Amino acid sequence: MRIGIDAMGGDLAPAEVVKGAVVARELLAKGDKIVLVGLQPMIEDCLNKSADPTDHVEIRHTDQTLGMDEPPVESLRAKPRCSIAVMAEMHRDGEIDACLSAGNTGACVAAAQMRLRRLRGVHRPGIAVITPTPAGPVAVCDVGANVNCRPAHLYQYGIMASVYVQAIGGVKKPRVGLLSIGEEEAKGNALVRETRDLLKADKNLHFVGNVEGRDLFSGDCDVMVCEGFVGNVVLKLIEGMAISVGEAIIRELLGGLPEHAPAIQKAARQLMGKYDYNEYGGAPLLGVAGISIICHGASNHRGIMNAVRVAKEFANFQVNQKIVELISQGEGQGTPASYRSSNA
Amino acid sequence: MRIGIDAMGGDLAPAEVVKGAVVARELLAKGDKIVLVGLQPMIEDCLNKSADPTDHVEIRHTDQTLGMDEPPVESLRAKPRCSIAVMAEMHRDGEIDACLSAGNTGACVAAAQMRLRRLRGVHRPGIAVITPTPAGPVAVCDVGANVNCRPAHLYQYGIMASVYVQAIGGVKKPRVGLLSIGEEEAKGNALVRETRDLLKADKNLHFVGNVEGRDLFSGDCDVMVCEGFVGNVVLKLIEGMAISVGEAIIRELLGGLPEHAPAIQKAARQLMGKYDYNEYGGAPLLGVAGISIICHGASNHRGIMNAVRVAKEFANFQVNQKIVELISQGEGQGTPASYRSSNA
Repeated sequence: MRIGIDAMGGDLAPAEVVKGAVVARELLAKGDKIVLVGLQPMIEDCLNKSADPTDHVEIRHTDQTLGMDEPPVESLRAKPRCSIAVMAEMHRDGEIDACLSAGNTGACVAAAQMRLRRLRGVHRPGIAVITPTPAGPVAVCDVGANVNCRPAHLYQYGIMASVYVQAIGGVKKPRVGLLSIGEEEAKGNALVRETRDLLKADKNLHFVGNVEGRDLFSGDCDVMVCEGFVGNVVLKLIEGMAISVGEAIIRELLGGLPEHAPAIQKAARQLMGKYDYNEYGGAPLLGVAGISIICHGASNHRGIMNAVRVAKEFANFQVNQKIVELISQGEGQGTPASYRSSNA
Repeated sequence: MRIGIDAMGGDLAPAEVVKGAVVARELLAKGDKIVLVGLQPMIEDCLNKSADPTDHVEIRHTDQTLGMDEPPVESLRAKPRCSIAVMAEMHRDGEIDACLSAGNTGACVAAAQMRLRRLRGVHRPGIAVITPTPAGPVAVCDVGANVNCRPAHLYQYGIMASVYVQAIGGVKKPRVGLLSIGEEEAKGNALVRETRDLLKADKNLHFVGNVEGRDLFSGDCDVMVCEGFVGNVVLKLIEGMAISVGEAIIRELLGGLPEHAPAIQKAARQLMGKYDYNEYGGAPLLGVAGISIICHGASNHRGIMNAVRVAKEFANFQVNQKIVELISQGEGQGTPASYRSSNA
């Protein structure tokens, strides 16, 4: 397997990205390679500083870069030789089998959609993020690839995220919840009500019904389906709150037990480590004909290494083949009319 | 001022609700009264157990109750003599000047909309919840009254929540943020983009632009405008996460410092107290021609007492008059066409 990594993407690029590619060696099988895509001199500079072996790493030079906050689609057009665009083309042409980036998320999504196309039967790709919680991990899909969701899109997120959770988390029969604002059938909005019918009708899915925001922490579902706007708000909120509340608790405790500062800080670090996104190594863009892993912008080398692990597991479990099978089976079952009407 | 309280609403009703009405005596001016609405024998039973004076309390008997999980509109039709319906009618008829309930939120919203009507110029009422965060309180509006928002509705939530924050928090020029999924103008969805133009155009508002989920904890805004579905997800998520993460941190610390369990638990209690919704005493349904305060279903007597405080401040600051003025001024300024087109 050949895994492309965007060496220029992310707040800590290229140093931490290159380091991640180097230490990911331990995850590779014989013959596996990592291809770092970006400015060759900068990548070589980082590799030269490494004390670890780098014989599993190749470089593909590109002479353009796309910044974290640039408008995705326009920038991809203006910079066709940026690392994100080149990597997607390499994937399309079979030079690599997966691509990873901690760079501009919108550009990664746009490049994958434009270059890789969609899996057969998939309407819209969606990003699935594994959210660590004290009650266990939950895959939230979509978290921002698609802000114009129709019921059929959300239904397919349920299918795709279920397969992903089986691949990554080893969950045999993932429980799928539909994010809404009340558990009763009548609550929610029109999108939720129609999606509910589709999810219910698919006997391959273990649909547990509507869930509320708090259920992300209740341990009642393994997959939470929502449209991209809501999912992105949820994701950013959790991140902001974890930092803010965590710091407030530590501050309060240090005030009460100043003599135990080292022990408190150690416990806090251990806890925060459990909820560190770097442990989960990036989120796949589900539904594209390929493997596109999007990493957190602040990923360090462990985040990149764990994203390589995700790409490997994604390939080994044949996530894409299973998604295509399940989507075609779901269609065959005679799903409600709203599926076909929203099939645009 | 006469304040109606739904004695039958909430997980801890009627005991904690009645106790809240009794201890709220200290907040009242001469001549102020509290009218407890509900089953007279149960209310009298609670009052008889009180050691505190109760001469500020009256009772209005009703013989029907509406449960927390009953479908709101249908149940209000089937139970016209339930406490929520009767209280809204008393408010409409001038028998009381405000109504408070910790009962079925949907029923409170529906009863207020049906009986009280809307303030002049207001398109849709919205619930504004003050969310305590380590960086300061933020009023989130709407959190579930309206799941079919148009740009004009969101724009008015910005106006109404600003007035409310001035009344309750004493914030002179509240900073209004529009919840979206990226700070750039182009990001978000169509609803957000159109709302942004309306908020920007109103010179009476201190609009600080789009904000993301994490900004609820950044201290960058006093008001966060969002549609009801998203707002409700946010609210439930925060509640679930605060409990879940708080407990996980305490657990981790107790593991590391078992000999300091009492001090750790004390610090945790103090901290949790700062973020206790009971301190904020309920959320107003902004935009109705009256004062309707919706309390958390798990409110204790402090929550009810603080909701009485909110009702008093709401009246003293003349929130409704100011909302009507600002909305009429906003219309006079020549707001964009999307305001009038969505004015339905």
